[in-house]
Amino acid sequence: MPRVSFNCTVAISFILLVLSVGYLTPAQSLRSAGDGSPVEITQVLTQQQSAWNAGDIPSFMKGYWNSPELSFSGSNGVSRGWQAVLVRYQHNYPDKSAMGHLDFSDLEIHSLSDSAALVLGQWHLKRDSGDVGGVFTLVFERFPDGWKIIHDHTSQVPPQKP
Amino acid sequence: MPRVSFNCTVAISFILLVLSVGYLTPAQSLRSAGDGSPVEITQVLTQQQSAWNAGDIPSFMKGYWNSPELSFSGSNGVSRGWQAVLVRYQHNYPDKSAMGHLDFSDLEIHSLSDSAALVLGQWHLKRDSGDVGGVFTLVFERFPDGWKIIHDHTSQVPPQKP
Repeated sequence: MPRVSFNCTVAISFILLVLSVGYLTPAQSLRSAGDGSPVEITQVLTQQQSAWNAGDIPSFMKGYWNSPELSFSGSNGVSRGWQAVLVRYQHNYPDKSAMGHLDFSDLEIHSLSDSAALVLGQWHLKRDSGDVGGVFTLVFERFPDGWKIIHDHTSQVPPQKP
Repeated sequence: MPRVSFNCTVAISFILLVLSVGYLTPAQSLRSAGDGSPVEITQVLTQQQSAWNAGDIPSFMKGYWNSPELSFSGSNGVSRGWQAVLVRYQHNYPDKSAMGHLDFSDLEIHSLSDSAALVLGQWHLKRDSGDVGGVFTLVFERFPDGWKIIHDHTSQVPPQKP
């Protein structure tokens, strides 16, 4: 009986330990940067920047959730679905000259759970025809194949008067 | 010994049951609308609409997280902090005539966790000086005193050509 009792205590303690670690993770990860997510999200954005600057929109699109539920908001309203967002980019940026050189800056990554994050940042396109830039809001979600943008809201910000 | 063994099995089963229910909640709540959050979030937006239409910007601001970390993005870049967002609204909408009549529509609430949600929608201001409207992206977080907007990205969408 002591042996059984011992096994029972060990079993219960083990279950409590394993489950409590998993159970506490979502709440603990709120606003924490300790789970590697910011690094992985930054990598997605760095990959997008490189793909854009190589003139490769389909590769740039790998950062987005490949789903009809993907949404993209801006001064044209809301575009819905990965395919529509791809077509929109290809229409607005038909060649490398129109695409220019993209830089993201001032990235802020706010963890919302262990599988969701809010990302704010600035974008800047350097182009022969004139630079443009602005701000973006991204909502990322973690999928089995990595972090993906599930919603993008991008605004152009006119250059500030000196 | 059978009695001890029985108690042990019951105890382990009970622990597994209780903890697994809690453990699964965050993952299960992803994209689910069953926890009452959409209703509470809709109430926040309805309250904001009523406050705006009563010309009461401070009451409208109750929907926002009262924190220096609140962020508001748009074609003017990023405003930071509850106070700055209040001042911006008061500056842009100095009186009831400028405020007009506000309507939110096409609300979509996507649960990101049990304490975070992404909300998309359209806004429309009916004014004597001319209507304006567009789209917004809100990120809500659940606080002890309820759901609050922690980030707002709003864009004006020019009227579509017929």
